[in-house]
Amino acid sequence: MEQNFSSKLLERAVEEVSNLPGIGRKTALRLVLHLLRQDATQTNALSEALTTLRREVRYCRVCHNISDTETCQICSNPKRDSTTLCVVENVQDIMAIEATNMFNGLYHVLGGVISPMDGIGPSNLHIQSLTERVPKDQVREVILALSPTMEGDTTAYFIYRRLMSLNIPELKVTVIARGVAQNNELQYTDEATLGRALAGRTPFVGN
Amino acid sequence: MEQNFSSKLLERAVEEVSNLPGIGRKTALRLVLHLLRQDATQTNALSEALTTLRREVRYCRVCHNISDTETCQICSNPKRDSTTLCVVENVQDIMAIEATNMFNGLYHVLGGVISPMDGIGPSNLHIQSLTERVPKDQVREVILALSPTMEGDTTAYFIYRRLMSLNIPELKVTVIARGVAQNNELQYTDEATLGRALAGRTPFVGN
Repeated sequence: MEQNFSSKLLERAVEEVSNLPGIGRKTALRLVLHLLRQDATQTNALSEALTTLRREVRYCRVCHNISDTETCQICSNPKRDSTTLCVVENVQDIMAIEATNMFNGLYHVLGGVISPMDGIGPSNLHIQSLTERVPKDQVREVILALSPTMEGDTTAYFIYRRLMSLNIPELKVTVIARGVAQNNELQYTDEATLGRALAGRTPFVGN
Repeated sequence: MEQNFSSKLLERAVEEVSNLPGIGRKTALRLVLHLLRQDATQTNALSEALTTLRREVRYCRVCHNISDTETCQICSNPKRDSTTLCVVENVQDIMAIEATNMFNGLYHVLGGVISPMDGIGPSNLHIQSLTERVPKDQVREVILALSPTMEGDTTAYFIYRRLMSLNIPELKVTVIARGVAQNNELQYTDEATLGRALAGRTPFVGN
């Protein structure tokens, strides 16, 4: 729809908001008009929070997680097991794993996965710092928790080979389990997932 | 999901973005992390556009449309027919009608519809200024283009009675047609719409 804005200021605001991924011009207009109905403090707080974050954002120098301090809260927590590293693609993955309360080690954020189509090679990811960190911090296990996609698998294999080339006999490299998702009905599970769940079956234990 | 943010700055930005209607915390996080991957100029342009609009926004003193000038481009356009007014709920409605290229009159933005449930009565809407404007500008036709909902109908009826009480013999009050939507298959049209389309049938004209 060709939109004729009655105001250049409005048009510019809608333009900027619709630059965000997944936000079309209609949604952008709705959001902007919402802000106009609210008190000005809300718009100012939003703008201020975004610009402050963008200006002052820092990344943990150890794991590359977003952090307000040089070393993030997780890396600097002495109660966490520094000999176990969980390699993830991005910051959201850390949040998802932290929400499970099932992991007490440290993380390593790659910042993406290898994707030749998007021009992302190993050198664009935090892989070098991982291979330096593993021997330095006497890591015993590296858990690869990447997405179960072709790109994720490629990246996992690449990292596995790099870690193996370090020749550390006591280092274990593992991947998170693949199988049927909790509470998903079997009949609706796709073939690849179901096949993999069958192949990876484990002894039954009553719970 | 309980989210543990590794950064207060990040948390605050996500908080503010998720205050927008229809944007949950997961989407907000995705948008904020997107901005962090882009150049800082994008975040700054977005913030600047929003705060500038919020600070400098003005509404046309005649029709209440959003405008950069005291009187909006539509109201101040001498080529438009000032004797025909189209009454709409909001600014998006003006854009939708302008996009049809079928209307050459002026508008009047109510700023909502009567909705006792939301505490919106006639005095919260720009109805008074409408009843002043109609005799002053020698308006001949008022087109009520409100949503076909109970609130829209109530508001239309309220305005109709107010306009009638002005006792202007040459004033016509009309409503936009209701019927089956263009390109919607008849079998999927709801009963109320179809019934109304039947009752409001017009003589067939070949085109």
